[in-house]
Amino acid sequence: MLGGPLLGSPALAQSDPLPLWNDGAARRAILAFVAAATTPGTPDFVPPDQRIAVFDNDGTLWPEQPMYGQLAFALDRVRALAPLNPAWKNRQPFKAVLDGDLKALAEAGERGLVELVMAAHAGMTASDFTGIVERWLASARHPHFGRPYTDLAYQPMLEVMAYLRANGFRTFIVSGGGVEFMRPWTERVYGVPPGQVIGSSIKTRFEMRDGRPELFRLPEIDFIDDGPGKPVGINAHIGQRPVAAFGNSDGDLQMLQWTTLAGRRSLGVLIHHTDAAREFAYDRDSEFGRLDKALDAAPGNGWSIVNMKDDWKQVFAFDR
Amino acid sequence: MLGGPLLGSPALAQSDPLPLWNDGAARRAILAFVAAATTPGTPDFVPPDQRIAVFDNDGTLWPEQPMYGQLAFALDRVRALAPLNPAWKNRQPFKAVLDGDLKALAEAGERGLVELVMAAHAGMTASDFTGIVERWLASARHPHFGRPYTDLAYQPMLEVMAYLRANGFRTFIVSGGGVEFMRPWTERVYGVPPGQVIGSSIKTRFEMRDGRPELFRLPEIDFIDDGPGKPVGINAHIGQRPVAAFGNSDGDLQMLQWTTLAGRRSLGVLIHHTDAAREFAYDRDSEFGRLDKALDAAPGNGWSIVNMKDDWKQVFAFDR
Ligand SMILES: [Ca+2]
Ligand SMILES: [Ca+2]
Repeated sequence: MLGGPLLGSPALAQSDPLPLWNDGAARRAILAFVAAATTPGTPDFVPPDQRIAVFDNDGTLWPEQPMYGQLAFALDRVRALAPLNPAWKNRQPFKAVLDGDLKALAEAGERGLVELVMAAHAGMTASDFTGIVERWLASARHPHFGRPYTDLAYQPMLEVMAYLRANGFRTFIVSGGGVEFMRPWTERVYGVPPGQVIGSSIKTRFEMRDGRPELFRLPEIDFIDDGPGKPVGINAHIGQRPVAAFGNSDGDLQMLQWTTLAGRRSLGVLIHHTDAAREFAYDRDSEFGRLDKALDAAPGNGWSIVNMKDDWKQVFAFDR
Repeated sequence: MLGGPLLGSPALAQSDPLPLWNDGAARRAILAFVAAATTPGTPDFVPPDQRIAVFDNDGTLWPEQPMYGQLAFALDRVRALAPLNPAWKNRQPFKAVLDGDLKALAEAGERGLVELVMAAHAGMTASDFTGIVERWLASARHPHFGRPYTDLAYQPMLEVMAYLRANGFRTFIVSGGGVEFMRPWTERVYGVPPGQVIGSSIKTRFEMRDGRPELFRLPEIDFIDDGPGKPVGINAHIGQRPVAAFGNSDGDLQMLQWTTLAGRRSLGVLIHHTDAAREFAYDRDSEFGRLDKALDAAPGNGWSIVNMKDDWKQVFAFDR
């Protein structure tokens, strides 16, 4: 009596760990790697304590167009703080933000961007900053999708993370974004706890104030977790070399090199944004998330390219 | 038939999680905290994902007299590298090391110490440094105990760590020592994996060399995980506030403040070195591991003081 339903197609569908992925080279590479890594007695077996998978965030787990979510946060915060900083009306890069002048903002360059980020991210305690991020996330809407940023996780990537965890992997986020900007929500959205988030940081200072211990966020860059910084951040934080890495841009090139050029079987994956209808299409010429050198390096290194348009049956949870 | 042996004294002994601790205030405080933290439905219950316990290393988990193990490593390495650096014979602080002139070494001060540490710890890849540490540990002997440093773990502290882990806590090392100096052996000696070791660090640089990705260790301080640096390191690495902290010196003062002054039940413990017969006796006047301000701060903050002589039945594994 029970045989029919249990052996029928619903059971088959349930046993597929990546139902939102179309059959293709990327999906097959992920499945084959995990099968090899978890089969004892084979040369490609990876002991459980070495099963470490790292994921870039912007453009790999959620969108980065038309601008990074954290940049939208910084701009909103500069606007919110403007009444307390009247001089900003006449000072770049703040004036550009307040005027909505994206051209002037771009002209302020990296230095201007750092100044904005400092104004938005420093000058409060670590726990106050967490509250600021949480309140922003509760009210901010993505300009293209009109939804909370935390609703925009790529569903096929959530599947991959869950699949890896079910096979004994620990999943880490390794992002150029600010670590304290991500930690308040990565567990809820991706199932990644705060201690498994690696990111860029500003310096903090411990101080007893009115008998209470506090960590103050200082307007000084501590670490940039991007490009060649990613292997540095991984080593500093985990102290072990990953066996699987997922990225989407040239900022992930060194992380994929570090992960995959270690003389053992590994998995390197690049998400290629090819889906202008459901998400965005961009690569070599994009301001955010440029994918150029890493795309050229992929074939020779055996990295898989995820063609978002063809490989993913669905992108977002609301996308049906 | 089975009732007798199972209910007799062997079973009772096995059910004691801290058999190497004499009954006293410190032991009772540890047991009471863990009981409260793991009892659901009480105000002091700590959800499993928040059960974070941090441990200083030198003087808390293993000895730090007559000098830090890592300083002994640095001195041995300077001696080993001397033939390749003939100028050291006439240059402080290297000359002091090669002459065994501890007075001149002390006069070189902190700056001299940093120079020594850089010479010993930089200029190689991260994986080469791991090999150097492992080879040193295999041959070095502690000058007082005549045994490998890794044989010197305090057995009652291993009990506490195992007891906490059995109750769902994650145990972290938070040490002023170098993170890459500790990671090769903390799992084997303390059961603490590399990703749960927080320490001081020098900068590293990622580089592709001959087609291989490498992390090079640079002669530049990155982070000093001591004193007010410990809460900073904890926050940067774990992103959560501990509920239990174990230390032994003024370098742990801020870590204990950060852990215990958070408006909830917590555990702060200081190891007081009172045992000149089995280990060493020192506190307010010691060059290494000075315990002065933190000792004064303990009663007002409810921190437990472990009197090594009275509270521990045994110190080392070989100590019977
Ligand atoms: Ca990215
Ligand atoms: Ca210590």
